[in-house]
Amino acid sequence: MFLRNYWYVGAYAAEIGEQPLARTILGEPVLFYRTSDGRAVALEDRCCHRNLPLSMGAREGDGIRCGYHGLKFDSTGRCIEIPGQAQIPPDAKVRTYPVIERWNFIWLWMGDPAERDESLLPEWQCIDDPKLTTTMGNGCQALPMKCNWQLNNDNLLDLIHVVYVHPGTLGGAGLDNNPVTTKRLGKGVHMMRWSAHVEPVPLLAKLAGFNGALSDRWQATLCELPSHCTIDAGFSAPDAVGRDGDRDQGVRLRALITATPETDTTSFMFYAQCRNFALGNEEVSKRFIQQIRAIFDQDIGVMEGQQRINSMLPNAPTIEIRCDVPVVAMRRLVMEAAARERGEPIAARATAPRPIEAGRVAG
Amino acid sequence: MFLRNYWYVGAYAAEIGEQPLARTILGEPVLFYRTSDGRAVALEDRCCHRNLPLSMGAREGDGIRCGYHGLKFDSTGRCIEIPGQAQIPPDAKVRTYPVIERWNFIWLWMGDPAERDESLLPEWQCIDDPKLTTTMGNGCQALPMKCNWQLNNDNLLDLIHVVYVHPGTLGGAGLDNNPVTTKRLGKGVHMMRWSAHVEPVPLLAKLAGFNGALSDRWQATLCELPSHCTIDAGFSAPDAVGRDGDRDQGVRLRALITATPETDTTSFMFYAQCRNFALGNEEVSKRFIQQIRAIFDQDIGVMEGQQRINSMLPNAPTIEIRCDVPVVAMRRLVMEAAARERGEPIAARATAPRPIEAGRVAG
Amino acid sequence: MFLRNYWYVGAYAAEIGEQPLARTILGEPVLFYRTSDGRAVALEDRCCHRNLPLSMGAREGDGIRCGYHGLKFDSTGRCIEIPGQAQIPPDAKVRTYPVIERWNFIWLWMGDPAERDESLLPEWQCIDDPKLTTTMGNGCQALPMKCNWQLNNDNLLDLIHVVYVHPGTLGGAGLDNNPVTTKRLGKGVHMMRWSAHVEPVPLLAKLAGFNGALSDRWQATLCELPSHCTIDAGFSAPDAVGRDGDRDQGVRLRALITATPETDTTSFMFYAQCRNFALGNEEVSKRFIQQIRAIFDQDIGVMEGQQRINSMLPNAPTIEIRCDVPVVAMRRLVMEAAARERGEPIAARATAPRPIEAGRVAG
Repeated sequence: MFLRNYWYVGAYAAEIGEQPLARTILGEPVLFYRTSDGRAVALEDRCCHRNLPLSMGAREGDGIRCGYHGLKFDSTGRCIEIPGQAQIPPDAKVRTYPVIERWNFIWLWMGDPAERDESLLPEWQCIDDPKLTTTMGNGCQALPMKCNWQLNNDNLLDLIHVVYVHPGTLGGAGLDNNPVTTKRLGKGVHMMRWSAHVEPVPLLAKLAGFNGALSDRWQATLCELPSHCTIDAGFSAPDAVGRDGDRDQGVRLRALITATPETDTTSFMFYAQCRNFALGNEEVSKRFIQQIRAIFDQDIGVMEGQQRINSMLPNAPTIEIRCDVPVVAMRRLVMEAAARERGEPIAARATAPRPIEAGRVAG
Repeated sequence: MFLRNYWYVGAYAAEIGEQPLARTILGEPVLFYRTSDGRAVALEDRCCHRNLPLSMGAREGDGIRCGYHGLKFDSTGRCIEIPGQAQIPPDAKVRTYPVIERWNFIWLWMGDPAERDESLLPEWQCIDDPKLTTTMGNGCQALPMKCNWQLNNDNLLDLIHVVYVHPGTLGGAGLDNNPVTTKRLGKGVHMMRWSAHVEPVPLLAKLAGFNGALSDRWQATLCELPSHCTIDAGFSAPDAVGRDGDRDQGVRLRALITATPETDTTSFMFYAQCRNFALGNEEVSKRFIQQIRAIFDQDIGVMEGQQRINSMLPNAPTIEIRCDVPVVAMRRLVMEAAARERGEPIAARATAPRPIEAGRVAG
Repeated sequence: MFLRNYWYVGAYAAEIGEQPLARTILGEPVLFYRTSDGRAVALEDRCCHRNLPLSMGAREGDGIRCGYHGLKFDSTGRCIEIPGQAQIPPDAKVRTYPVIERWNFIWLWMGDPAERDESLLPEWQCIDDPKLTTTMGNGCQALPMKCNWQLNNDNLLDLIHVVYVHPGTLGGAGLDNNPVTTKRLGKGVHMMRWSAHVEPVPLLAKLAGFNGALSDRWQATLCELPSHCTIDAGFSAPDAVGRDGDRDQGVRLRALITATPETDTTSFMFYAQCRNFALGNEEVSKRFIQQIRAIFDQDIGVMEGQQRINSMLPNAPTIEIRCDVPVVAMRRLVMEAAARERGEPIAARATAPRPIEAGRVAG
């Protein structure tokens, strides 16, 4: 199940050049390239004549020429030349996807172009914030995952997993007992955990040179439809900042992470991290990129393990626990959006999660 | 199609230690480990919360802690800890499989635990018989086969195949003309062939130091539901033992072999051999283990070849021949057991095999 | 979808010897071997007893003995021996396929043997023509393609693709503007393009030592049901031969190419080339074989690319262009033949292609 009328990261901006790049997105073959003035283009990656992937052809000027019979398409997907034929049939065109290049990512609108809505982009301006240092993910190469895209939402709305999946880097004692606050926003779900007087985030403490044994620590995720997660995580010396204070007084990381569906059981992770410490320090950036990739490999191991079980036992019963409140709220948001796209009425009560002990969905 | 209310070998006892071992059995993910007192445990290999395989977690005390959110399960499959949450929902549990550790194997009951019936175990006491020397199969590692489990029953109830599949080791001239006697027992099918004054079993003759050109040879298989084959094979000098005599006066091998379904088209072979010659001789044991594995690789080649055709042409017509009487009787037993598990009446006549020339099903 | 009542190339004659060769054709397992007098035989590659591929057995005399229970089949597929059993059931037989060995190929009739019709063979006598030099394809080894067989018909009825897929070897300027003439023959479709005063075929010019900058060039394909393509391609000095003249006065190549379906999405290419220049020149033959294989690898790359899209988007809309007239005519012929085999009336109008600008189907 895919949501169509949303923006998806199709590629890192740095992945797209003059040579065609082919990638399957939401089960559709997509071709990326840049025109001579550097504009990124995303076309359906099949010639409308005989279905050869256009990515097997060649860029020519600002268009693409098919490698089979030489049909040429412009950057809007319109066929503008059929060798040996003067007249071009009106249906000689391929689909084009609206593209926005922003924050080092190429964003694709996968639904009806007429419904394209720029306000549905997440607010990832921090990537360009000169007061922060940003590291783009994985050497700017899409990171493939053999799992459904929603497992990534689950993972990032449920940051207690750092204790078990990432001990020694993102884990740490003392988080368990601090409950999560969940808010349902218009286009997403926000969760926040504040843990006073607990171990600082080991990886961040190390890279930021923080030596305290205790800290005040926060973990917050805004997950917006379909799969864009804006994480705000960090810590300060105990009582130095406070729950409602200016977190930039502490060691703070914004992590921007999204999973783009390839098929129902595979997806691509794209990400960036913006930090407010060790600004401009290349050595820290390098170690940071390596560590984050190692951490995400742990997450991908978990999600691929879940996918194996989900594929083997699609109807196995599961339970919800207290930390699932944001996860369940987001799953419901996705279900509602899917129903909306199918033109179905939204049976809010039918899709409501079972009551969860100590959980609370606000807003 | 799987039969559920039976015991299956899930592992060699030696495969199970304190670290979790994951294996798919009857299409279900199963996790094995030993508690601190050495007791083998088999649990459903998925956390009931988010479907992570529990085998990706860690044993902790006598239980398992999930590697995602730290839920801890005891050795009965009950969740006994949810980090950050005092109350544990009553449905927070995973399936546990009744286990019997016996004869160096871990036996799993895959059906309703309430119907667990120890009398359905085969009688493989010979493995522990101090008057015999036992070699466990394949270095105590499950041997994977890309074929349906029933092909192994077929193979072992039809030992004339040794002439064609295992020439030089288990084959030998003179078997063809000696018909098989078939008896249907309560929980299985027994077949027996007695061949007087024929070539001895080449492999056994060699290892036992028998130099005679002729022998009296027997091949008997008891195949019990679902897939447990107890083979009694050997030979004596001509007329030394006789059809109804004490076969332990000859060179005698008990081979205990079973195929455990992994999926409909894959399974695991487990086996042991008990011999009454070269007792305690380690060198003979070593050669024996190697030769048996080579022989079973031949069988697996055959069964995987059959599976390729069965998958390609599931409805291809086949014929029965004289030596199929025990095979057909066992297939019928399996069909009846499957119908019983589905709660269907058993249409004995409808499932009856076609008449076979010179065949006979007794008992 | 396969057409059954036709001849298919099952193998190069040189591939078949006394040892069994197994190959899946039209989704059926087929076994090839030669009898002691050298006659090629094609049998169903499964024992009718327990479905072991007979190719895992051994040739014995002019028959095959199964490697599982020793059933022996003669070269007509009849079981002539069942070890341990005097009587042979009348249904103990496997399917045999009518075979014709001709022009270095083994032709199989995949339909009802009673409808076998030798007149449906293509006329590839040129392979044996002593006035030509023939090179058999790919070292006489079937060339596997991960694509549906009909894509090869499309490819070869649409030779304008040489400009884009094979520049530098078969391409060349000036072909685009010369329209194709299409004729529908009884069992196939014929297309022809005559291009006066254009670049000669680079590969042929080089091998034939032709140095002229211009030539008169022809490309003609007869594609006969199901997939047999007889190509006549070449060139002469400008105005030396003329459209209706004796093309053997020019540099002329007959290329005989066929795709045999393995499954719906895989097939085998078989081919031969007969040239009227550099006769008997082994060095030219060697370079020719290498170059043709490189060229066909380009075609296979294209067809496998199409197959990926066809499998991903089976209902994607496509357009027809002018050069598709022969392609569409052949697709229609295949559809009609398939309907005929299913016993359906042929809805000629319903299957008619959309009108194509400047296209014309004659005959």
